[in-house]
Order: sequence, then structure tokens, then C-alpha cells
Amino acid sequence: MIKITPNPKPYLVIEDIKNAIDEVSIEGMVYNVRDMGNFYFILLRTSRDIIQFVWDMQKLGNPHVNEGDCVVLSGMVKIDKRAKLGFEIHATKIEFATKVNIQFPITINKNRINLNMDNHLHFRPIVLRNERQRAIFKLQEGLSRGFREFLTSQKFTEIHSPKITAAGAEGGANIFKLDYFEKEAFLAQSPQFYKQAMIPVFGRVFEIGPVFIAEKHDTSRHTNEYTSLDFEMSFIKDHTDIMKMEAAALEYMFNLLIKEYAQELELLKVTLPEISSIPAVKFVEAKDIIAKEFNRPIKNYTDLEPEEERLLGKWADKNFGTPLIFITHYPTKARPFYTMDDPDDPEYTLGFDLILNGIEITTGGQRINDYQMQIDKMKRFDMEIDKFESYLMTHKYGTPPHGGLGLGLERLTMQLIGLDNIRYATLFPRDMNHITP
Amino acid sequence: MIKITPNPKPYLVIEDIKNAIDEVSIEGMVYNVRDMGNFYFILLRTSRDIIQFVWDMQKLGNPHVNEGDCVVLSGMVKIDKRAKLGFEIHATKIEFATKVNIQFPITINKNRINLNMDNHLHFRPIVLRNERQRAIFKLQEGLSRGFREFLTSQKFTEIHSPKITAAGAEGGANIFKLDYFEKEAFLAQSPQFYKQAMIPVFGRVFEIGPVFIAEKHDTSRHTNEYTSLDFEMSFIKDHTDIMKMEAAALEYMFNLLIKEYAQELELLKVTLPEISSIPAVKFVEAKDIIAKEFNRPIKNYTDLEPEEERLLGKWADKNFGTPLIFITHYPTKARPFYTMDDPDDPEYTLGFDLILNGIEITTGGQRINDYQMQIDKMKRFDMEIDKFESYLMTHKYGTPPHGGLGLGLERLTMQLIGLDNIRYATLFPRDMNHITP
Repeated sequence: MIKITPNPKPYLVIEDIKNAIDEVSIEGMVYNVRDMGNFYFILLRTSRDIIQFVWDMQKLGNPHVNEGDCVVLSGMVKIDKRAKLGFEIHATKIEFATKVNIQFPITINKNRINLNMDNHLHFRPIVLRNERQRAIFKLQEGLSRGFREFLTSQKFTEIHSPKITAAGAEGGANIFKLDYFEKEAFLAQSPQFYKQAMIPVFGRVFEIGPVFIAEKHDTSRHTNEYTSLDFEMSFIKDHTDIMKMEAAALEYMFNLLIKEYAQELELLKVTLPEISSIPAVKFVEAKDIIAKEFNRPIKNYTDLEPEEERLLGKWADKNFGTPLIFITHYPTKARPFYTMDDPDDPEYTLGFDLILNGIEITTGGQRINDYQMQIDKMKRFDMEIDKFESYLMTHKYGTPPHGGLGLGLERLTMQLIGLDNIRYATLFPRDMNHITP
Repeated sequence: MIKITPNPKPYLVIEDIKNAIDEVSIEGMVYNVRDMGNFYFILLRTSRDIIQFVWDMQKLGNPHVNEGDCVVLSGMVKIDKRAKLGFEIHATKIEFATKVNIQFPITINKNRINLNMDNHLHFRPIVLRNERQRAIFKLQEGLSRGFREFLTSQKFTEIHSPKITAAGAEGGANIFKLDYFEKEAFLAQSPQFYKQAMIPVFGRVFEIGPVFIAEKHDTSRHTNEYTSLDFEMSFIKDHTDIMKMEAAALEYMFNLLIKEYAQELELLKVTLPEISSIPAVKFVEAKDIIAKEFNRPIKNYTDLEPEEERLLGKWADKNFGTPLIFITHYPTKARPFYTMDDPDDPEYTLGFDLILNGIEITTGGQRINDYQMQIDKMKRFDMEIDKFESYLMTHKYGTPPHGGLGLGLERLTMQLIGLDNIRYATLFPRDMNHITP
């Protein structure tokens, strides 16, 4: 028998290394080896950095080191302004933890990964070792972390709702069916019903989790599984309380990136949007803007087309210097049955989208909280009310005015970084053709 | 057009209310109304507390208030040591946000919910409004928050891996099948393959997400979907580095509960385990202890039975004053193919479980990082290696020594609080008979 104590293996951060006076030993993977004649440059990839070691061949002999080797490299830190990190390390010793004796099938240690999408996704486990590719997901971590930290500070409670459900929150055919012990079950398209059920419990809730959309789309903006940042809050005046909360959340998230993810922002040349004031236009106004400012005839009066969203983003940028724009008051027909109608004009809703750089990243709105109002709207929508007994229990026994939103983490990542396909902002994307790796 | 600024609706915490000198207005739901003759006690349930209002009938008339009403109650704070919170509020005004005119079908405003399991789950959306029921999930939030905060402080990177997969990480028949665009797909039993793929990318990763087990079990310890707290770390000496990290994570989580969730600990009468030193015994030793200390014949030599886990918990408590005990070196046959064998005795592995109060809450271990060693073990396990090309890419191009674990959030919650069924520690449980709500 032994005794285990709470004693986590320590870690080195780049500041510790930079300021080291004695010999340092650093764990990592060999990213690149460059033969410079008398010496080697060995680039060591650590959990967040690429550190340059100088290996003196005459003093130390051949290191017999290959790309992919997992090693502990020791040496003395030398400040050198020419090096990317402001220092390099003069190697004294190498120890091998894992030896790789195979040529890499693709080049991952250059700036760009030059692969078509199929090959890119096939080699995803090694593609992600590329410095820039992994920086995308380090930033993504910062975004979900910021969302969570901010909402926790605002007294939201984090929940974990089931992904296996008896019915879809959004309705429609775009839902994955599951074989659940000979019963019919589905994969949740959103945590909507559960967030709403928790409103009378905690008042403010959030969830970060996977959602599943069985749509047969093949676009650069869609996948069939993504990570949704969801929140729901009670005692709101109307949908603008949700929008203000979202703006504050995004502000916190961006500030966190600036404070703790500066090296990834720099590496990927990301400029974060100004967020102190976001224009919000009504759906009908938005259609007018598109028609007048861009001389584009309106075809669809119930929803925005992708091209229209792109133009609205352009318009916001030109007129207000921000790539962000809220569109509010979508038509009732275009929004789910739980959306609150505009009391001034029930053909429209208190539902909104947020567009970033021309692509929708958020859908939200005020929900119906009155039991009878919800029943009546479901009847107008020709829904089978019996099937929603469990959902409607929340309304029946009292729920305050509330609303919320879902923010697509991968969409947000893609648009902030300026990636041209959402697959590059998804760790292991799922689409009609890809379920591996 | 309007402008939206980052301006979140403010919240009140109990300290703000307690110290208020002027009239306060508090949003909440009516939990209970007690007619005291000249006055009413109105218990207002806010996002975290139950606040007692005194409603003077002679001054204010009948409030016409019912359980479930969503209201804003105003009044003056009066310190009163007899009140649970140390104060009560003498009401001046009530405004209704949502009016409920229906009798509750069950009693939720008493200490205990007296329902059989089926009814309990049927009424889950309103059952969770009970003070104690919701406290369970407030504590659960603290646990996942603590796990995440601690690992972030230790430079772990959070990932979001897909839940739709081409193959199960754990193998076996207990996996849900999905209709995925006419292809065969499954729901992930664990993020194991993806955590491992991310080891050479970030060195240390964690994920909090749902996992799906299609087992037809009907026990108080199992559901078919649960929340897994997973981490994986590189450059470990052996499995004990994982165990030490887990002990440190649990220590941080428990301290966070003590610091920020004291009222829920108090409400649920939870005493957190001592964690400065956790005994760890080898599987074979554990079997000996059971045989000798409890005079129980050993039947199963490859795994621990639930009753044996219970006895080991008892033994740890008696001998070391802790309900926690690690069991290490499980037989190779009982562990997945990616588990590292003990170099001193390859019949056993460097895999471990953590038992809390007699029930397993964690499975973890060192993984195989050498490509050839992994191939050889898969051959011994009679596996079709071709099917794992994508998984093995990680090993082929180099991955450092590593390991990790999965900690069941609901199991941990259940065992800490002393609940007798895991369904009470699951927000909306999924089992063979329940997919609603």
C-alpha cells in the first residue's frame, strides 16, 4: 500500500524559462530540426510555445533527433533578441521519452497547412500539432472560459441537460434519431426546454455543450454537431436585456483573450471587434437597408438570406465601425413556437440574431412565460399540445418573464479569426462525409 | 435603430439585501404563504435563498398571492435572529410578473419530496424548485467549476470533442447506434480517443461533457447518460502522477465548496472528506483485504464486485479515517486495450479506480504511448487494427508518456451528499424507462 497526496506535477511557463539562471529542463515534442553545419537548431514544441535550442555538434555530438520525438531537452537560457521569444537555449543534454522513426506524411511545421479539406480532416490529429492550428483552439478555450467566468460572476448557475431527448426543441425534420432500448429518441438540437425548466429553479442558468443538427447542408458555415454557449435569464423587461447581457459577455470574453491569450491573437493576426456599442435594427428595417443601400431586391420576407446577412455586416462596419449588428423582431413564422410575440405587432417577435462579420453567430429572444399564451400560440402553430405536457409544466406552475440565447462557439471562433470554413474552427468536425477521426 | 451597450441587468446577493437600509425590491417566486391571522408570512424563493416577508393584512390588505406566483416584493429589512437568514422583510408592496391560479399537484415547499421514483421524475421540473433538490445541483455546479478552475490553473487546455463517433473507445455492445445520413455512427462512451489525440497538441487537456452508455442496467448507481469530468496529461512517470493530480483537483473542488457553497453544504448536511492522504492498494492486495478482514470468499479474480468496493470503502474509513481509496493494478483482461501494462508484471496494468464511500467514482490510468507496444497489445486483444488507423496516427507520429481519468460528476455528487440513487444527482436522468422530461 502507498499513500497518495494532493501533489500535482508542476509545470513550467515561458516566463519561468526565460528568467532561469541555472540549467533548465524542458519537456516537449521536436517540431523541427535544422542542420546549420556546426550546430543544429532544434525547435521544441511545448504545450503553448516553440522554443529554439542550439545544439552544438562539436561539443555534444549528433543528437539523432527526429520530428515528433518526445524529449526532455536541457540547457542554458541565452537572451537573444533575434529569437522569436527573445531567447534561445544552448542545449546541454537530451533525453528521449518517445522515439519516432517515421517520416511525417504531411508538413506541419510550416506556417500554412497545404492540404485539401478531405486530407486536412484525415490527418487532423497531426495537423492540430501545427502552431497556428492549435492556436485556434487555444483561443476557442479562452472564449468558452470567458463566457463561463462572466456568467458565473453574474450569478448564473451552470447546468448539464440531457442530450438524449424524447422530442426536438426546434421541431422539424433536422433531428438525429436514435435507437434507445427499442424506443424512439432523438439527439438534442438545443438545451432550450431544459434551460427554460431551470428558470424557475435558479433564475439564471447557462450551459456549454454539444448540439446536433441533422441538416443535409454542405456549406462552409455548417456542421452537424457543434458546441453551443447557451444562457437563459429571468425577470427581463424584454429581449434587449438579453442583448445587453450578451454584449457584456462578449466584452468580457474579448478582454480575457487580450489579457491571457495575447500570443495566440498575435500569431493568428486577430483584431478583436470594438464592442462598446452595437447597432440593433428591426428585421423590416434591415430588409429596407439591404434594398436601399445595396440596391438588392427583397425575395424572402420571412427570414434573412446568407447574402443579406453579409451585406448587413458590411453596412454596420461602414456606418458604425463595428462588425457586429443585432437584427431584432423576426417574423413570427420564422421563429420557434416558444418565442414571445411583439405586443405592439404580433406578426413579429421579440427574437433576435447577432451577426458578426456577416455571419449569424447567435439566435435568441424573449420566451413566452404565460401558460395560456403559450397554449394559444401552439394551437396557432398546429402543434400537438399533449406531447408537450412535460415542457408546459414549467409554465403551468409559474415561470417569470425570461429569455436567452445560443451562441455557436465554432462560428464565433471562425468569424473572430477570419477562417473561411467552420471546419477549421471545429476540433474534429462532423458533417455528412466525416465522422472520423 | 437602437444601440446596445454591454450593460448587464444587475443582481442582488443576500448580503446586499441584509445590509439594505432603504426599501428593497426583490424578484422571486412565491414558495409558501402562511396565514398568521393579522399577517401573512410570504416565503419568497430567489435564485439561491428563501426570504421571509411579513405582510401586514391590516395595513396592506389581502395580497392575493399563491404558490408559484412570480413577483417583485418590496419592503424594509428587519434584523431578527429567529429568522433562518437572520432577518425578515416587512413588506410594503407586491407586483405580479406571472400569476398562477392552479393548485400544485405535489408538495415542494417542505423539506422532503415524498414521491416514488416514477412520480418524482415525472414532476422533475417542479420538484427541482424544492430548496434541497436545487441545492444538490448548486453543489454540482461547484464541483465542475472547481475541477475546471483547478485544471486551468495547472495549464490544462479545455477541449470539445465530438459525441458522434465512428467507433466506441471502450468497445463492447453497450453503445448507442445512430442513424447518421445512412451511415453507421455511435454516441461516444468517453472522450478517450480525442483526449489522447490532443496530448501531443496541448500536453494537458480536459473536457467536461456528456457520455452515453447503452447498458441495460437498472441499478441505483447507473444511468445511460452522464457528465464526465475528464483529463489527460503528458510526461508522467506512471499512473501515480494522475492520482496525485486527481487528489489535488478534489482538494481544490472541496475547498471551493467550503468557500462559496457553504449554505448548500449546510442545508444538505454534507461533511466533505478529508483528502490530505488517500490510501492506494493494488487490486490483488484489495482482494486479500476483503478475504481476510471481512471473511468473504473471492469469486471474481478479474474485477471488483460492487459489494467488494463497498467493503474496501469501509476498510479505508476504519483504518485511515477517509472514505476515499484508490485501487491500482487492475488485471489486464479487465481494462481497455489502451491501458499500459505494469512493466513488472504484464498480467496487471497501471490502471486505477477511485472509490468514494464504497462506490467507484473514477477510472483512470497510464496509457500506452509507444506505437509498436499498442499494436502488439491490440493483436493480443484480437482487434481489427485497420479500423483504428485514425486513432493510431497519434502514436505513429509520436506521443509522450501520458495518462488520465474520467470522473463521473453525478456519482461524485451522489456520494458526497449521501443520496441513495444517482437519479437524484442527475438533473434530468436518462435510463431504460425515462427519456422525459
